[in-house]
Amino acid sequence: MRVGIIGFGKTGRAVASVLLESHQTVLQWVVRRSRRLEHRSVPEFLGIESTETQPGLIYSKDEYSIDEILDLYPVDVIVDFSSEDGLNYYGDSAAKRGITIVSAVSQYPQEQLQKLKQLAQQTVVMHSPNITLGINFMMIAAKILKNIAPYTDIEIIEEHFKGKPEISGTAKILAHELGLPEENIKTVRAGGIVGVHEILFGFPYQTVRLKHESITREAFGNGILFAIQNLQEKPRGFYTMENLLLPYFKLQDSVEDIINTDHKLLDQV
Amino acid sequence: MRVGIIGFGKTGRAVASVLLESHQTVLQWVVRRSRRLEHRSVPEFLGIESTETQPGLIYSKDEYSIDEILDLYPVDVIVDFSSEDGLNYYGDSAAKRGITIVSAVSQYPQEQLQKLKQLAQQTVVMHSPNITLGINFMMIAAKILKNIAPYTDIEIIEEHFKGKPEISGTAKILAHELGLPEENIKTVRAGGIVGVHEILFGFPYQTVRLKHESITREAFGNGILFAIQNLQEKPRGFYTMENLLLPYFKLQDSVEDIINTDHKLLDQV
Amino acid sequence: MRVGIIGFGKTGRAVASVLLESHQTVLQWVVRRSRRLEHRSVPEFLGIESTETQPGLIYSKDEYSIDEILDLYPVDVIVDFSSEDGLNYYGDSAAKRGITIVSAVSQYPQEQLQKLKQLAQQTVVMHSPNITLGINFMMIAAKILKNIAPYTDIEIIEEHFKGKPEISGTAKILAHELGLPEENIKTVRAGGIVGVHEILFGFPYQTVRLKHESITREAFGNGILFAIQNLQEKPRGFYTMENLLLPYFKLQDSVEDIINTDHKLLDQV
Amino acid sequence: MRVGIIGFGKTGRAVASVLLESHQTVLQWVVRRSRRLEHRSVPEFLGIESTETQPGLIYSKDEYSIDEILDLYPVDVIVDFSSEDGLNYYGDSAAKRGITIVSAVSQYPQEQLQKLKQLAQQTVVMHSPNITLGINFMMIAAKILKNIAPYTDIEIIEEHFKGKPEISGTAKILAHELGLPEENIKTVRAGGIVGVHEILFGFPYQTVRLKHESITREAFGNGILFAIQNLQEKPRGFYTMENLLLPYFKLQDSVEDIINTDHKLLDQV
Repeated sequence: MRVGIIGFGKTGRAVASVLLESHQTVLQWVVRRSRRLEHRSVPEFLGIESTETQPGLIYSKDEYSIDEILDLYPVDVIVDFSSEDGLNYYGDSAAKRGITIVSAVSQYPQEQLQKLKQLAQQTVVMHSPNITLGINFMMIAAKILKNIAPYTDIEIIEEHFKGKPEISGTAKILAHELGLPEENIKTVRAGGIVGVHEILFGFPYQTVRLKHESITREAFGNGILFAIQNLQEKPRGFYTMENLLLPYFKLQDSVEDIINTDHKLLDQV
Repeated sequence: MRVGIIGFGKTGRAVASVLLESHQTVLQWVVRRSRRLEHRSVPEFLGIESTETQPGLIYSKDEYSIDEILDLYPVDVIVDFSSEDGLNYYGDSAAKRGITIVSAVSQYPQEQLQKLKQLAQQTVVMHSPNITLGINFMMIAAKILKNIAPYTDIEIIEEHFKGKPEISGTAKILAHELGLPEENIKTVRAGGIVGVHEILFGFPYQTVRLKHESITREAFGNGILFAIQNLQEKPRGFYTMENLLLPYFKLQDSVEDIINTDHKLLDQV
Repeated sequence: MRVGIIGFGKTGRAVASVLLESHQTVLQWVVRRSRRLEHRSVPEFLGIESTETQPGLIYSKDEYSIDEILDLYPVDVIVDFSSEDGLNYYGDSAAKRGITIVSAVSQYPQEQLQKLKQLAQQTVVMHSPNITLGINFMMIAAKILKNIAPYTDIEIIEEHFKGKPEISGTAKILAHELGLPEENIKTVRAGGIVGVHEILFGFPYQTVRLKHESITREAFGNGILFAIQNLQEKPRGFYTMENLLLPYFKLQDSVEDIINTDHKLLDQV
Repeated sequence: MRVGIIGFGKTGRAVASVLLESHQTVLQWVVRRSRRLEHRSVPEFLGIESTETQPGLIYSKDEYSIDEILDLYPVDVIVDFSSEDGLNYYGDSAAKRGITIVSAVSQYPQEQLQKLKQLAQQTVVMHSPNITLGINFMMIAAKILKNIAPYTDIEIIEEHFKGKPEISGTAKILAHELGLPEENIKTVRAGGIVGVHEILFGFPYQTVRLKHESITREAFGNGILFAIQNLQEKPRGFYTMENLLLPYFKLQDSVEDIINTDHKLLDQV
């Protein structure tokens, strides 16, 4: 899969390094707003020894239009880690060419979200404000547990580095999805903590905790790889990370098989 | 629902107190091996003020046959927290009368497990070695996550009181269900810890932890209540706690609805 | 050591059971406000098989004065788990007779605290709002770490059962002792959690967490035993749990010895 | 303070970046075995904007002797993150010139440790196999708690990335210092976990956990800064991180003052 990245901030760089190291993707180019780093090679800049034949250069928006870039270096997927208006640069061209769009922009205003959905009539579009596998798995699992035990008290604890302002956007989404008011989010800010989200279920005589800890921003890269794989062969339309994960919760054959071995175990124990 | 309990050790007592306090169950009697406490009232013995009209007395196996007891005080469900041979006392009579059997005996030899399955041809039978909701939810959720991210490293950490010998049976089952060797179970023994089970998924750049902590043995009582409710209306056959929980993972309408509100949130954020 | 207990609520009972099971203390009596349980034996009521020759009966304040009780059943220590006015019942008599007073009443108004300090001119008096060893150790250790690394961000997370109103008193004291505003306390309320207090130190590139978890109220009993032992031989005066623990932080010979073996280890490794 | 670093592996680089960003230290040079990166500027290589006037270049051992380097760029402290034979390169010259030596080499054979102690007769020498503040604080605090409550069960849990072979050296030292056999260390290996060490104290009715988590290798840099500051003004001799931390546990005036405010709090509460 040939991939282009829009945006080259801290997260964009981390994702680029995961894509460069994956055998399933070829990083064709990065486009960013700033002209700094123009024409530098991404693997060289990131200090990664890449066997990719494509140089994977960095361009700025001002220098070339997306069509000029795509004509020279076509891609199958555009991954967007820029900001809410990144879409204006590449959206229409990508849709027209049938390129899959994966946007991890954390917040869109109403009109941009509408725009994204219109593009989804022409091509495969995915958008998720938090693109890590762990957080998205936890969100679905938590909804299920709430369904099983609706009488439990649920609290969300999130920990981040001292400078992070306000409540984490991910914690807000978790709370919203679980039907909790924001008061149930407890916000811890200390030192250089990268990011911890915990969902605590309090039963009368037991607790269940689902806890996600980010080690580095590269965690987003694995989420992107998962998305790219699972969007392949999908019909055009609008998807979320949750949509891609849900089929795994339907417990396909392989899982049901494991479950049916229960009693073999019991026989042996 | 009228319930009778077989076995009155520490866990049996804890479960009895939860059933007494529930508005959905009436505790008709307890049968145990020992003659101590014979004819004492369960609510009085446990110091629970019960509004149940039935006295809920304690009998011993030697004094009455199960049929004598059932003739006087019929039940809808028999809950077994005794030992592997408890089944011999009540099994056939319960099956003949169509009484639901819920066994939480932690280990059965081969022949008793066969017996249990034969009884399941006549009535509803459930057996689970660990009957807490939290552990069973975690087990299924962990299988799903393993399916989503098969490349993760999975470790199980279990903590119990100093005196507990060997690896916890629950941890062994978790490992077996996840296809892990016993070396992946790390066993901590210290002081009076009631019981902690953690399943750790190590991704390259993130971790997900599913952690269950027992506060008291009453946790088993809530599992029994859940089982009794979910076995109602079920056809005869053999069930496990996992069988009862799986439908909740199929993400019924209510959950899917919540999921579909995602974008409303995004619109607002 | 002969001990009498004032107060027989949940915590008083838990402490009584620890004292009954200790070989270092003999529980002489319990005095409580209510007339319920009058003249019942404490070990019998708590279901503890005690080898103590003294029956350990329960009295009510209204029935006997403390002097009548002490004349019949003298004690070396009075442990107070009642309320702020418990002191009025036994304070003067205890001080006059040189009986050690250990009060675990969580909050006193100004005048009662003054009263307690006056009594300390005549006998040994100890007061601590949280009498567990773990919490008091953590408090001192946290002050030391703050001194070593004053630039760290400190947050306190406390978790308790759903019904517990407001911030935990222990968390407030921890915050006060560490010079933190109450905003740094994050309060989690869920299910039947007995009590968790965590002090988190956020460094730029590492975290240190000191975490205390109560399993049951009997934890207070071990704190009382520690206090009784460490108050023996002390001159009259006013003490806190912290005063009793501080000498252990002066790193007596035994500890310094261990430290000096460092390099033996290095030689071997 | 002018500092030179021996060794420029991952940890050496992380420490260099902390020293460059500190206002208390000037990084004069780095000496390493390999000739790669020769004569490059450390701040430039690490992407740090430094206001230091000294360029802070990288040299190789083969190119210059330590005396040639010290004549041109004198330092007050040499920090060694190389390997067991790094000492042979700089040891004698550093000692002769009275330069403080801070070695964080994790394991030395017997003879090198002897060598280090001989050098300590001429200058200030510090050696600690784990130089983070958090781990060293935890080790001392754990010894104190063991002294307070010798009857507790102590377990050590350490978590690291999948590839890390064997038990962590730090966990071994913690165990040794606490008089525990290696069986009490539980080793978890999963994904990309940077490093977690937890010391668990199990009391009968409570637990205390001391838990250290490394976020990145820069944690070593803060330990080095602490060491450099606390070694200033010290007489020549051999020191460990623990020696430098112990005075903080003697609870100097400032801490005792805080402690004495206890009752003011109680008066207000």
